[in-house]
Amino acid sequence: MSEERRVALVRGAFASDLPGVTVGIGDDCAVLERVGEPLVWTVDAQVEHVHFERAWMGLSDIGYRSFMAAASDLAAMGARPVGALWALALPATFSDEDLAALAAGVAEAAREVGVAVVGGNFTRASELGLTTTLLGAAASPVTRQGAAVGDGIWVAGALGLARVGLEACRLGVAGDPALAAAVAAFRRPRARLEAGRVAPRPRAMVDVSDGLALDLSRVAPHALLDEGALLARGGEGLAAMAAAVGLDPIACILHGGEDYALVAASPTALPGFARVGEVTASGGLRVRGPRGEVAVAPRGFDHFGG
Amino acid sequence: MSEERRVALVRGAFASDLPGVTVGIGDDCAVLERVGEPLVWTVDAQVEHVHFERAWMGLSDIGYRSFMAAASDLAAMGARPVGALWALALPATFSDEDLAALAAGVAEAAREVGVAVVGGNFTRASELGLTTTLLGAAASPVTRQGAAVGDGIWVAGALGLARVGLEACRLGVAGDPALAAAVAAFRRPRARLEAGRVAPRPRAMVDVSDGLALDLSRVAPHALLDEGALLARGGEGLAAMAAAVGLDPIACILHGGEDYALVAASPTALPGFARVGEVTASGGLRVRGPRGEVAVAPRGFDHFGG
Repeated sequence: MSEERRVALVRGAFASDLPGVTVGIGDDCAVLERVGEPLVWTVDAQVEHVHFERAWMGLSDIGYRSFMAAASDLAAMGARPVGALWALALPATFSDEDLAALAAGVAEAAREVGVAVVGGNFTRASELGLTTTLLGAAASPVTRQGAAVGDGIWVAGALGLARVGLEACRLGVAGDPALAAAVAAFRRPRARLEAGRVAPRPRAMVDVSDGLALDLSRVAPHALLDEGALLARGGEGLAAMAAAVGLDPIACILHGGEDYALVAASPTALPGFARVGEVTASGGLRVRGPRGEVAVAPRGFDHFGG
Repeated sequence: MSEERRVALVRGAFASDLPGVTVGIGDDCAVLERVGEPLVWTVDAQVEHVHFERAWMGLSDIGYRSFMAAASDLAAMGARPVGALWALALPATFSDEDLAALAAGVAEAAREVGVAVVGGNFTRASELGLTTTLLGAAASPVTRQGAAVGDGIWVAGALGLARVGLEACRLGVAGDPALAAAVAAFRRPRARLEAGRVAPRPRAMVDVSDGLALDLSRVAPHALLDEGALLARGGEGLAAMAAAVGLDPIACILHGGEDYALVAASPTALPGFARVGEVTASGGLRVRGPRGEVAVAPRGFDHFGG
């Protein structure tokens, strides 16, 4: 298939009538109307055999989750999305139908997030790769810096489920109805864009892509977490589902990754967030549970190591 | 090497003190100050074995030209650059020194263009891949649409040289001093950002990445070009250098690609551009030379086919 035909196919998949877009897919660049606030900008790539396997989910899921992973970075800054670019690396064997399925998943995620895909790029490659660039805006973006000793640690979204879902896909038991919630959390994560625009504004925030322990260490290297509050963020079924695939639920929460929950530091309650611990002055990261305090390494799901 | 170490290495390579950057490399997103004009936005990927071979040039050249290829899209819209994101796919064998060389080339290109690299992404992959996202601004962006019959066709920058330089690299004769200009055009292309912001504003513009014939067809499907004027855009040495590597200079100009020259349609002269032909009402693309008029297929350097 020629590049021009691929461009036409992708253009057909995306909504073209969203406000704020002056020039969409098909020119040298996209053109967006003037934005009144500071710009918040991120890029995220997902590569086959590194971030996903096609045996684990359909191509529309692969498209959907790659887009949500990028959108989650905007959520972590408290930004609203303004536009998206989609750069695709396609193996020679990738068919029209494959591309249509991938684009349908990206289009669904973009629609849910309320943003237009305004341009992109194609290249050949030996592995399927999806690189999503998202532009957003925020009057006062929230960074990873600024947490203060005594701040509460607040979480929006579920923790640990996606790791259980990944394991279910790896083990070939993703069709088990008892694991449906975990598999859905892995295949169809949701960027927490509305939660990220919370008022009052957190002092610092990050999204959980590499696991709570590593991501939280980027906001607060010293913190005491409550095991019961963490387990509650996995939902009622987490312990049972984790056991069914041979995993420890707390390990999934701390080191699992790809939850795309938000973790914020704030001295006051954040609507839509649950308190799971507190920023401390020293001592590294610890979890307090029935067996007392346990130190936790700021180790996560390192795609480079994995 | 861990991802955090790679981030630190890349951050060290790029200037961090450029105006307009509120949050640079290292947070979930970059934050840029408010931009007063419409936003012009592009993404471009270059993949090993598709767009380049490491045997053809050093890693700093690979970084430099991948950045300029993306910047050329901004030039084609008449935009000024505002910021850049750099997403890297790295093979497992890629060393610290390799990454430093690659980043040095990107940093050099970014400095020449006058823009900050404010963020990026790392992933593992089996092939080296560089994806550059560039944001720009323009009060009145110039698109590919709008050329009118009778408009002159104007070119800024050289044509054909890069294709000769590619051939010299393929043949292993890139060290021949007689081919130096062509090899430099291929390894170190320059995005024509200043030329693109020309006044008067062209009616339509595109950059030459796939070869003049294909790129011009996107602006004006019917046009008559002058062979002498085209050959002059290759510079004095083009014919001799093309002959030395066994290529026809006009074929290099029409179908070579990766020149990153600009082609514009305008009823009036464009300072810094040379007139090479005229938009016509019908007849497709033709070149008029000593042997009369010859029809030219809108065929270029198709990376997907190549």
